[in-house]
Amino acid sequence: MTNMIDEIKDQIIEYLPEKVKLAKVEFEGPEIVIYTKNPEINKDHGDIIRALAKKIRKRIIIRSDKSVLSPPPETIDKVEEIVPTDADITDISFDDVTHEVIIESRKPGLVIGKYGTTSREILKQTGWTPKILRTPPINSETIQRIRLSLKRNSKERKEFLQKLGKRIRREPMFDNDWVRLTSLGGFREVGRSCLFLQTPNSKVILDCGVNVAGIDEKTAYPFLNVPEFNLQDLDAVIITHAHLDHTGFVPYLYHYGYDGPTYCTTPTRDMMTLLQQDHLDISHREDKPLPFNIKDVKETINKTITLDYGQVTDISPDIRLTLHDAGHIVGSAMAHLNIGDGKHNFLYTGDFKNEQSRLLGTPKQHFARIESMVMESTYGGREDNTPTRNTAEKELVKAIYDTIQKGGKILIPVFAVGRAQEIMIVLEEFINRGILGKVPVYLDGMIWEATAIHTAHPEFLSNELQKQIFHAGENPFTSDVFNKVTNNEQRRKLLESNEPCVILSTSGMLTGGNSVEYFKELCEDEKNRIIFVGYQSEGSLGRRIQKGFDEVPLEKDGVTQLFHINIEVTTIDGFSGHSDRKQLMEYVRKLSPKPDKILVCHGDAYKALDLASSIYRTYKIETKTPLNLETTRLQ
Amino acid sequence: MTNMIDEIKDQIIEYLPEKVKLAKVEFEGPEIVIYTKNPEINKDHGDIIRALAKKIRKRIIIRSDKSVLSPPPETIDKVEEIVPTDADITDISFDDVTHEVIIESRKPGLVIGKYGTTSREILKQTGWTPKILRTPPINSETIQRIRLSLKRNSKERKEFLQKLGKRIRREPMFDNDWVRLTSLGGFREVGRSCLFLQTPNSKVILDCGVNVAGIDEKTAYPFLNVPEFNLQDLDAVIITHAHLDHTGFVPYLYHYGYDGPTYCTTPTRDMMTLLQQDHLDISHREDKPLPFNIKDVKETINKTITLDYGQVTDISPDIRLTLHDAGHIVGSAMAHLNIGDGKHNFLYTGDFKNEQSRLLGTPKQHFARIESMVMESTYGGREDNTPTRNTAEKELVKAIYDTIQKGGKILIPVFAVGRAQEIMIVLEEFINRGILGKVPVYLDGMIWEATAIHTAHPEFLSNELQKQIFHAGENPFTSDVFNKVTNNEQRRKLLESNEPCVILSTSGMLTGGNSVEYFKELCEDEKNRIIFVGYQSEGSLGRRIQKGFDEVPLEKDGVTQLFHINIEVTTIDGFSGHSDRKQLMEYVRKLSPKPDKILVCHGDAYKALDLASSIYRTYKIETKTPLNLETTRLQ
Ligand SMILES: [Zn+2]
Ligand SMILES: [Zn+2]
Ligand SMILES: [Zn+2]
Ligand SMILES: [Zn+2]
Ligand SMILES: [Zn+2]
Repeated sequence: MTNMIDEIKDQIIEYLPEKVKLAKVEFEGPEIVIYTKNPEINKDHGDIIRALAKKIRKRIIIRSDKSVLSPPPETIDKVEEIVPTDADITDISFDDVTHEVIIESRKPGLVIGKYGTTSREILKQTGWTPKILRTPPINSETIQRIRLSLKRNSKERKEFLQKLGKRIRREPMFDNDWVRLTSLGGFREVGRSCLFLQTPNSKVILDCGVNVAGIDEKTAYPFLNVPEFNLQDLDAVIITHAHLDHTGFVPYLYHYGYDGPTYCTTPTRDMMTLLQQDHLDISHREDKPLPFNIKDVKETINKTITLDYGQVTDISPDIRLTLHDAGHIVGSAMAHLNIGDGKHNFLYTGDFKNEQSRLLGTPKQHFARIESMVMESTYGGREDNTPTRNTAEKELVKAIYDTIQKGGKILIPVFAVGRAQEIMIVLEEFINRGILGKVPVYLDGMIWEATAIHTAHPEFLSNELQKQIFHAGENPFTSDVFNKVTNNEQRRKLLESNEPCVILSTSGMLTGGNSVEYFKELCEDEKNRIIFVGYQSEGSLGRRIQKGFDEVPLEKDGVTQLFHINIEVTTIDGFSGHSDRKQLMEYVRKLSPKPDKILVCHGDAYKALDLASSIYRTYKIETKTPLNLETTRLQ
Repeated sequence: MTNMIDEIKDQIIEYLPEKVKLAKVEFEGPEIVIYTKNPEINKDHGDIIRALAKKIRKRIIIRSDKSVLSPPPETIDKVEEIVPTDADITDISFDDVTHEVIIESRKPGLVIGKYGTTSREILKQTGWTPKILRTPPINSETIQRIRLSLKRNSKERKEFLQKLGKRIRREPMFDNDWVRLTSLGGFREVGRSCLFLQTPNSKVILDCGVNVAGIDEKTAYPFLNVPEFNLQDLDAVIITHAHLDHTGFVPYLYHYGYDGPTYCTTPTRDMMTLLQQDHLDISHREDKPLPFNIKDVKETINKTITLDYGQVTDISPDIRLTLHDAGHIVGSAMAHLNIGDGKHNFLYTGDFKNEQSRLLGTPKQHFARIESMVMESTYGGREDNTPTRNTAEKELVKAIYDTIQKGGKILIPVFAVGRAQEIMIVLEEFINRGILGKVPVYLDGMIWEATAIHTAHPEFLSNELQKQIFHAGENPFTSDVFNKVTNNEQRRKLLESNEPCVILSTSGMLTGGNSVEYFKELCEDEKNRIIFVGYQSEGSLGRRIQKGFDEVPLEKDGVTQLFHINIEVTTIDGFSGHSDRKQLMEYVRKLSPKPDKILVCHGDAYKALDLASSIYRTYKIETKTPLNLETTRLQ
């Protein structure tokens, strides 16, 4: 079992010169950690380390042997001396287990320095390896809790990573003759996305979501009780993005004994924690208990390994994972698996938006190799074409402007993650340009916290937005046009005021949450307006309003009353985080190289089938639309 | 776990009248065994037993309590007294474990008596339950060995059946929400047929074959190393017919610890034992060891439960199996599974011949229900139409006649099981009708033994043939036109003789066996003729001869020599045991009711795809041609 590990160790020892003063080599999950008694090496001979990493195709981390660590107080002085004051350090703490000094800063770029020089200088002078975290400009409780949990869990985490390091590098037992994919959820439907990929040597889950609209466990959760799936043999969970239909069932895996890693981007980890906690809270409030609890959400955090876009990572003896931008929500990714040393390459798009937005980048379209692919089809029907983002923005501004002129209030029900922030950026710009006057924008519910998480990860936002934030120093999210609403007193005040205003509130489909409360107060006055910017599912209150119902019965003060709908109702398509039909087809057109086989998922049956048959007819690529519980051969 | 069993026991106790003198109720595999102290009950009140069986929908066997068994010598006297001498009893023995008297007879019908009266009289007078076996008119070593093995293994077998009885009646754990089928072998190919059917409560294998032409374990054996398959959870193995591409890997399952049942017809059990033994012998001779041994073949016999056509049998908490005639070889069956109390009905055709032959019956076409089906496509290509059996026979007789006239010898290379017997019947008839004179027919190799097994199971042959055997007393297989060849001396003699003759010898494609030896002796003389009546696979010697090669290099006396082919070469299509394209389509046309979904297997990729698309276009039934290792949802 240790052959592969010994081999790598031998390679490293042979390669590194005497002066490295190698103390030991350890495997922490996918990374190789080299402990040295000469911390200068990393600063003065970074080229050696980079050449070694390239040679063995592994990520290498340099840490100091305990014997050469400076005392913490002295280290704090050194750090403050080395790092420019502009970096605005908010906290310095130490991790005895990993020999890291954790530096939280408002401008982490200045702690890293050009090409990492500042960071390496800290290592050289103190022996401690800097772990540099951004202090978000808007405080996020979620991120605070996550960072605290990881600090406290440091020792267990190191043990976990070392065990995992060995597991990843176990000898493969069989030839890589085949690759199979079992659809455990989210096929010919939207919700509970779950893909189970198997090779003769590895087993991997991609996404593990819930269908929040599911009526019982058979419709809400993925089919994990198939005979080929068992938690003991699972090598990895890969998460493409934070939405609950992709992450809501991950804590269940840990609850029932999974003790392996979950791979995702850092924003996905943070946002998924927020959404999982919220899901538990709501389920608790509604007395519909989930088959796991808050401990399992924490366990998920502690077992998550975050990856950057483009970072190639060994996750099993025969699979290398790389995440790439998907443009769907912050941190959203496509997962590329290189299987059996490149013998088969698999791409899972997750949810993706094939159009530049203000908030996010665009999905990757060029790969070294792809043999098979699974893609989403949420808007895959032939009728699913939406206006461009530009048109949508113009409609939005015009509608808001009109209502402001009449002295009315505007309610925009939104999903907390993604669409809310996209709308915020548009509003901020048009208000700043003086087009909408000084209208105040109120953010109610989870939107504020979700926005805070966005501000902690500007590197995952669009280039345009990064430029604005880093160079112009104008972070739209921290603009004073936005006001946080947290209690009923504030809600009452803003509703009683005669001033026009814009209210962004969850839930996005008026299926609960404060958006319904606002609606009840605003709906009978024809001066006001409600603007739908997202999909309203059949049966939701949002859909009934959209359809033009005159009145709806709603509960108020414990009794059901009839509310007359006089509010102006506007629907604006084009803000979706999903590619429309044209964009889906365009993605396949531009994709290079073309896969041999495309499986279509994450869409109603007829949309999935329609998209699959169009792709086949247009590009002559074999397509499939498996049912849940089916297994398809990829290789 | 015992709830269901207790329930059935209670039902039985409640139902049976006092006079039954119930001693105990036991579950032996799918059967319920009632022990009584009043053996008369079965004879005098058979109606009660039949009504009970109908009520609880289970098979019931009546046995006597030990206390009422007559001593064996006395029993032998009684049996001889009760059974008419015409029955020609050849052996009487006793099974202490099952309280059965085993009576072997040349006319078992006379031991059973009209409506079973004679048999019940034996039970009444002796207490022993008669188990009546046919003494085959041609002695079969295979059958002798099987019967002996079962006798010796009686105690272990009863324990096995009792354990199985409980397992079959365990409480189902989950709702029957789905039925899935994983293709483990024999999809888009011929060879190593293996279907793995799963419900939330049960796991069943249908056929478990090898590809004898496979070059290594990856091409020769089914894919049993998929994660959903494990021997511990397997409820049953169902075998449709004896050919090695359907049975060759069953002993492997037992070798690696499977200890559940194998279900098939009695001729299939006997014939599969012969073929498995032969396969081991050949592999041993060629020094290509198989991953199991002769012990595992015996274990297969001991764990086999034989079923008659049409006999409905519980094989797991949610699956009932019924075998129906497939017309392919003796004992060949289609397997019908009633799943979840009729919620889903699945038909697996196995190999089938949709045409009346002399030897066998025709496949069943009317079912109570079928929702999904897997069918073979060996000759599913649009070009795969063959002459009728009638035309083929005429061609055969004409070819043989011509050669006899010239004083030549006729070599017919055949597969030992099925085609050989079909040809034998034709020859016997035409010789008896004086059309071919008194030409002797020599049977070499396994053909004789395979024919003996046919004679042990006349109930599994065509109605016409049964009539001939039972009523006219003219068994064509025992005709003196046939001569058994077992040694080189005999071979030399018949070849040296100047007399014309017909030689039936294995292998059927001249890939080894004595047919090659005969060919070497006969091929250079233009008076002789070789007649191919079966498929010659690419690369085989048979195929090269068919193609008209002038000469072939073959080994003789240890050196390779060039043999000139002057022998007349004739190919006669139409004797195949597989349905041709027209017959496959016709089967689907007449099938009632029509399934919602048809999966096509057991055919080269293009034939499977061609048949599937024709069925879809003609009958508008959804078709699929899965790859090996894929899982398809049936429900
Ligand atoms: Zn999403
Ligand atoms: Zn989604
Ligand atoms: Zn979505
Ligand atoms: Zn066959
Ligand atoms: Zn076959």
